Amino acid sequence: MVKVGVVGGTGYTGVELLRLLAQHPQVELVAITSRAEAGLPVADLFPSLRRRVDLRFSDPKNAQLTACDLVFFATPNGVAMQQAATLLEAGTRVVDLAADFRIRDVAEWEKWYGMTHASPELVAEAVYGLPEVNREAIRGARLVANPGCYPTAVQLGFLPLVESGAVELGHLIADAKSGVSGAGRKAEVATLFAEASDNFKAYAVAGHRHLPEIRQGLSRAAGATVGLTFVPHLTPMIRGIHATLYARVTREADFQALYEQRYAHEPFVDLLPFGSHPDTRSVRAANICRIALHRPQGGDTLVVLSVIDNLVKGAAGQAVQNMNIMFGFDEMAGLTQIPVLP
Amino acid sequence: MVKVGVVGGTGYTGVELLRLLAQHPQVELVAITSRAEAGLPVADLFPSLRRRVDLRFSDPKNAQLTACDLVFFATPNGVAMQQAATLLEAGTRVVDLAADFRIRDVAEWEKWYGMTHASPELVAEAVYGLPEVNREAIRGARLVANPGCYPTAVQLGFLPLVESGAVELGHLIADAKSGVSGAGRKAEVATLFAEASDNFKAYAVAGHRHLPEIRQGLSRAAGATVGLTFVPHLTPMIRGIHATLYARVTREADFQALYEQRYAHEPFVDLLPFGSHPDTRSVRAANICRIALHRPQGGDTLVVLSVIDNLVKGAAGQAVQNMNIMFGFDEMAGLTQIPVLP
Amino acid sequence: MVKVGVVGGTGYTGVELLRLLAQHPQVELVAITSRAEAGLPVADLFPSLRRRVDLRFSDPKNAQLTACDLVFFATPNGVAMQQAATLLEAGTRVVDLAADFRIRDVAEWEKWYGMTHASPELVAEAVYGLPEVNREAIRGARLVANPGCYPTAVQLGFLPLVESGAVELGHLIADAKSGVSGAGRKAEVATLFAEASDNFKAYAVAGHRHLPEIRQGLSRAAGATVGLTFVPHLTPMIRGIHATLYARVTREADFQALYEQRYAHEPFVDLLPFGSHPDTRSVRAANICRIALHRPQGGDTLVVLSVIDNLVKGAAGQAVQNMNIMFGFDEMAGLTQIPVLP
Amino acid sequence: MVKVGVVGGTGYTGVELLRLLAQHPQVELVAITSRAEAGLPVADLFPSLRRRVDLRFSDPKNAQLTACDLVFFATPNGVAMQQAATLLEAGTRVVDLAADFRIRDVAEWEKWYGMTHASPELVAEAVYGLPEVNREAIRGARLVANPGCYPTAVQLGFLPLVESGAVELGHLIADAKSGVSGAGRKAEVATLFAEASDNFKAYAVAGHRHLPEIRQGLSRAAGATVGLTFVPHLTPMIRGIHATLYARVTREADFQALYEQRYAHEPFVDLLPFGSHPDTRSVRAANICRIALHRPQGGDTLVVLSVIDNLVKGAAGQAVQNMNIMFGFDEMAGLTQIPVLP
Repeated sequence: MVKVGVVGGTGYTGVELLRLLAQHPQVELVAITSRAEAGLPVADLFPSLRRRVDLRFSDPKNAQLTACDLVFFATPNGVAMQQAATLLEAGTRVVDLAADFRIRDVAEWEKWYGMTHASPELVAEAVYGLPEVNREAIRGARLVANPGCYPTAVQLGFLPLVESGAVELGHLIADAKSGVSGAGRKAEVATLFAEASDNFKAYAVAGHRHLPEIRQGLSRAAGATVGLTFVPHLTPMIRGIHATLYARVTREADFQALYEQRYAHEPFVDLLPFGSHPDTRSVRAANICRIALHRPQGGDTLVVLSVIDNLVKGAAGQAVQNMNIMFGFDEMAGLTQIPVLP
Repeated sequence: MVKVGVVGGTGYTGVELLRLLAQHPQVELVAITSRAEAGLPVADLFPSLRRRVDLRFSDPKNAQLTACDLVFFATPNGVAMQQAATLLEAGTRVVDLAADFRIRDVAEWEKWYGMTHASPELVAEAVYGLPEVNREAIRGARLVANPGCYPTAVQLGFLPLVESGAVELGHLIADAKSGVSGAGRKAEVATLFAEASDNFKAYAVAGHRHLPEIRQGLSRAAGATVGLTFVPHLTPMIRGIHATLYARVTREADFQALYEQRYAHEPFVDLLPFGSHPDTRSVRAANICRIALHRPQGGDTLVVLSVIDNLVKGAAGQAVQNMNIMFGFDEMAGLTQIPVLP
Repeated sequence: MVKVGVVGGTGYTGVELLRLLAQHPQVELVAITSRAEAGLPVADLFPSLRRRVDLRFSDPKNAQLTACDLVFFATPNGVAMQQAATLLEAGTRVVDLAADFRIRDVAEWEKWYGMTHASPELVAEAVYGLPEVNREAIRGARLVANPGCYPTAVQLGFLPLVESGAVELGHLIADAKSGVSGAGRKAEVATLFAEASDNFKAYAVAGHRHLPEIRQGLSRAAGATVGLTFVPHLTPMIRGIHATLYARVTREADFQALYEQRYAHEPFVDLLPFGSHPDTRSVRAANICRIALHRPQGGDTLVVLSVIDNLVKGAAGQAVQNMNIMFGFDEMAGLTQIPVLP
Repeated sequence: MVKVGVVGGTGYTGVELLRLLAQHPQVELVAITSRAEAGLPVADLFPSLRRRVDLRFSDPKNAQLTACDLVFFATPNGVAMQQAATLLEAGTRVVDLAADFRIRDVAEWEKWYGMTHASPELVAEAVYGLPEVNREAIRGARLVANPGCYPTAVQLGFLPLVESGAVELGHLIADAKSGVSGAGRKAEVATLFAEASDNFKAYAVAGHRHLPEIRQGLSRAAGATVGLTFVPHLTPMIRGIHATLYARVTREADFQALYEQRYAHEPFVDLLPFGSHPDTRSVRAANICRIALHRPQGGDTLVVLSVIDNLVKGAAGQAVQNMNIMFGFDEMAGLTQIPVLP
């Protein structure tokens, strides 16, 4: 049993993490912090956890986080970078579900996130927690930067292609659609039910924070800087990301076989038969990415469809997967939930 | 391990049953039948089950159901009554998720369901599978009639009251709201997304088939015939039933204590603090009924709020709970999923 | 043409009022105020009004509201009571869409709304703007208190009954369901898409502010104090209220005929054939209340179903209807939109 | 007043057409046909039309359609091509909302629609009813082929670009998202609420019937064959299409000015400021296409966002717009509805 703490347990990635951790056979949940809700039983805020999580939110100051083997940060950007160093020094390992340690170029990070980085030295140490790319490095990591939701769906969808070098790397297009929980549990007009329901829109087309993260990952995989147009959209569903990816083929290959080989041993990537249409509900509430390939009209544009649950494989589930790897557990431990359909 | 078969695995209660059974530690799933889909891999119809359910739908004629220890019928009304006798004779136990064996008065059943009953003698033997009422009888039962979704929510909400005799039994009111999956996976205009979304309506106010079932259960609990006005509504969500129950107090009592005592040892009934407002998502995808009591303005009308997931505690989950009782398993085996929120 | 001003045009009742007023043949829209958005073109906040409303939000201090013939307050509770007197003195008539002038008993109002009333003397003068009850008084009114959304649906549903005296007045039940826009365009966690979607719950069962308003209206109609249990629910749709009303018959009557007669000349109340199930989309975006009667199993409980669009007949549409009456226009002027279905 | 008939009034384009025609100042609605519902009052099927449309559905055989000045076909593909000739001979003009006359290449049409064309000679005569392209031809047309929903959104979004020749014409990408009403009012499992809600998926990626229609229109505008990858998606909303269009710039230009000029006099195309994000609800229930341009990171990929209501500018509204042009009415007659928001 590892002793686990969660910093910032009141958002959607927080409650999802609690749902998964409370069912994990090798986890002892010892602290969940929230400055605003300190003292409140966690199950009072999230009745779904009644009888399953008996803890109260504790004040971050009083929580004995250094007594934990692992601490998850399910906090807004900019929090983990303040607190990670202390924990690491005490021998506590850290998984940050926010963006603090995802971008290796600190200046780039500061530009997109609009703040000065508090621990640039830890950025260099941190391992980007996409197991399908960095499994070995994660195993030994003290500090894991859990990927963003869009970056997970888009990178898993593009990886075999950019690794193969068989497509034009300078003009990739990712048209991504996210459920509204991706915006977090924050009181904002734009994500009210009466605003977001029965409605569809693009946002941040000029530049979304996940763009540099995706570009970094794909460029590393390609061994060259990729050009990416990334257009995120808000779609009226709670959970789910559907990434529709476009790449122009420059060298023919058996792309279906390429993907099959690339993901043959991945427990959480499921390649569908060529020409399939994965829907987001087929991964709802589960730690899975399903991918399908298309070649419309046999032209030179390859279309990849990639779906995840943004709160699971796109956040909390992937964080647990990283924990499993870090602590030598079965990678699927606590992550065997079957998607909820309908 | 019990060998389990499912007859009619293509509807929503069917796929939900498969989701739960595939995660059950003591179940071996041996057959899933469907006349229409015979030969098709189950996971082709329900991609959420990919890598988790490897069976193909089999033709009911060829399925060796009598080799099963237990067969669930997730079929339309009128199917189980044709096939149960053969299975029972072969020593296979049966849980029917449809209505064939729920109403003890066969004439009443025939009136509401518009068909002649094929096995009236089995009606007498069948045990009504509401564990909170019939746990002991279920233990020894060969044939269990799994309750309807509305009847589960309404009966669990009213039971302590009608057992206490402290309310006017002749004028109970159940105003119930159901998600659209309650209508089943049938091609019908009325439940199309473009009809049922962003819309709310009552239906079957003149008389819904679940009325006699609820009345039977409450009358038995009360030891007298109860009068019930039951108004079901369709609400634009996939899963969930919210029953708002009204009863007029005729003798004062500590109703909160009454409910606490009644459900103190029930693993799947959760009484909330007095004055709470349970929401349906707090039980989404889990086998739980949450109940809260209100006494608006201290008047003589008691209001009970009762929520379940219609596909779990209102159907497949309760069926698994019945199986657990029938076979002496831990009653919570395979039913420990934490509700999915958000 | 009447010169019209709108105070507080940034909420849902505000934008709905603008939609209706911009299409009204006898209205000249001269000012829309908002402290927070002063200077911003209205159509920048609400792109649906592009090319149709050319005004900018103006600061309340600078808006020449006294030059208007009529000012609508689409503000939070407590604003109109501060400003109405000045306008009335200047000869400008006022329709308040908030609750400031709805309750005649000022002490009762102060208890439910938690503030001291700033203009108790105007409360006495104000006319409660439910045209189906007060049409004549509205005609001559300087100050109209536009009814709440629930009160409109519930009163129109119960009125013929309580006027008839044929039901038990001490135990009326109103089980009401509202779309989320009823909560307003306010940044709050509880009404986020990810909270309110695919979810259903009751709220404020202990006492909702619309309870005294409904009780006052029904008591006046009955000529006696009525007893009412009112349970509001939040349902995952944008617009619409569905009130399911229960009353116990104490004296037989032809209730269908009673309703037909009562509403025979009402342009915005539509009585459906006995036993119908009106759905909320059948009134979506239109100024209509549709009502249907039921008598389940021929018992002594009468069930009335009453639906409105909470933003139209429950707010902005009814306000325009009141304006039409006050200024002697055709009562349907500007209100002939056909409901949007699907 | 023109005498208007509607063939096939029971689908979503049918009821939307009735909503618009019933409010049109110069239309007399004389017949609505439906074989299945003949004899039924239209308002019984669509209660939203109560008090506004008094007709009954008539049997197509008995309807005196040749007495109409104009007949709209809101029928499945393959019906209008059987009946148009007779009407045209009688001097009745025809607008077909289905696909029968949209594709000039009959062989191509037969390939995509899987049937033999019954009136190839009328295909040559028919005018493609996109007013922004063919206004003059529509004016004199006897037979108008009303465009498909996706083709309207995609063509209006791409037109100025392809006409300018400033982008690579061989590799256009249209990633389009549609509300579920686009699938029609047909009983099908795939569009049930419980299937399509809280879910997102692509479909028909291998080839959608609207592909040849879009390709034809863009190729004509470009004066050369364009290459188009078209990926449609189903999004959980009732109405609305959001097309996200990608084109690679080959020659710099002031694209915003290009679009402004192109649509300067169009009553139903609204170009937003550069960098805007139109949402589908900003056109809900109204005959408008809103368009915005983006140039992410200043790269060579231009992104165009184009939104319409699929049932209005994408079907019934555009049909009425065509009627207005054909009969010399004000083009906006009956089409001044302001979008319904929220």
